[in-house]
Amino acid sequence: MTGADSFFDAPADTREEIMRATYLALCEHGYAGLTIQRIADEFEKSKSLIYHHYDGKDELLLAFLEFMLDRFEEEVPEDAEEDPADHLRIVFEHPLATPLPDERREFGKAMVELRAQAAHDDRYRDHFTRSDRVFRERVADVVADGIEAGIFAEVDPDATATLLMTTVTGAMTCRATSGEADVAALREELERYVETCLETRV
Amino acid sequence: MTGADSFFDAPADTREEIMRATYLALCEHGYAGLTIQRIADEFEKSKSLIYHHYDGKDELLLAFLEFMLDRFEEEVPEDAEEDPADHLRIVFEHPLATPLPDERREFGKAMVELRAQAAHDDRYRDHFTRSDRVFRERVADVVADGIEAGIFAEVDPDATATLLMTTVTGAMTCRATSGEADVAALREELERYVETCLETRV
Repeated sequence: MTGADSFFDAPADTREEIMRATYLALCEHGYAGLTIQRIADEFEKSKSLIYHHYDGKDELLLAFLEFMLDRFEEEVPEDAEEDPADHLRIVFEHPLATPLPDERREFGKAMVELRAQAAHDDRYRDHFTRSDRVFRERVADVVADGIEAGIFAEVDPDATATLLMTTVTGAMTCRATSGEADVAALREELERYVETCLETRV
Repeated sequence: MTGADSFFDAPADTREEIMRATYLALCEHGYAGLTIQRIADEFEKSKSLIYHHYDGKDELLLAFLEFMLDRFEEEVPEDAEEDPADHLRIVFEHPLATPLPDERREFGKAMVELRAQAAHDDRYRDHFTRSDRVFRERVADVVADGIEAGIFAEVDPDATATLLMTTVTGAMTCRATSGEADVAALREELERYVETCLETRV
């Protein structure tokens, strides 16, 4: 759930430069090892500029999470050109890609650490609530499009979207925290779910 | 994934008393707020006894996780009396119970924090790898039993078990970290998955 690549090559302004430095520092050190100094190490301008914009590590990370989610909302078109069944597969095939490049794997670990902050910090909880809602509503819209187009059976779009949102979150969690994550088997079974539980038999 | 209730009423020895105190302190303070002192506050004997057995907070928590998993393995029978379809439903209905009692909700948050430690601490990663494997193998056995009994179609037990393990992990994660978790919708869709993707139509 990141459309993170393009702005890293050419950040448009100081804010994007700070976001880029935050991303790189998160990939290298994770949340537990992150400090403003380590973000500053990835930043080409003065560290004081970071403090000018953000009061501390968590304020910066919360701004980073919002920035990434805004980019996701902008970059992923609501009405894709693909048919709804293909569109739905993209939803789970992107986070379940194998093999995962090192940088995305390390970023995935950091995201699991950031999400865990939501267990005791309402600011993080508010973010992940919004993030889950964006993801779930997008998927529900695709399912509803598929029903309208006669490609999917008359299922409950919210229930389907909830299952996919929950499973993708679980896959990202297991992948970052366990040697037992079998994303190939999971993709296979999700594919079977789409074919058997959603698509109308022709 | 806890059969935690019984020993809390009557811990059998010092080790179980320490485990009980750890559980209560985790429910009250979460991982982030946990200290040996706060575990000692829930322990009726001397704090030095905790240090005698465990070198620090993480050593104690890792022993606690193993203790809970061992209990789960002992208490949940491999061959349940229910038929495989009912047995499978129990797998996701227990973690997706609503409403969740306060203590289980707080413990669920602490478990998400503990799992996130696995992103950068191999000792936690080893534990959650074993924990996921136990869960997945149990579910795969139930699915295989169902196929043998002619109740389930000829599906891949490992792929089915992977989907259920991943989804349950995702549900516990979302529930602890987001206001967007809709466990009722998720239960409904998992029920539909079992009926449509697993059970043979009679």
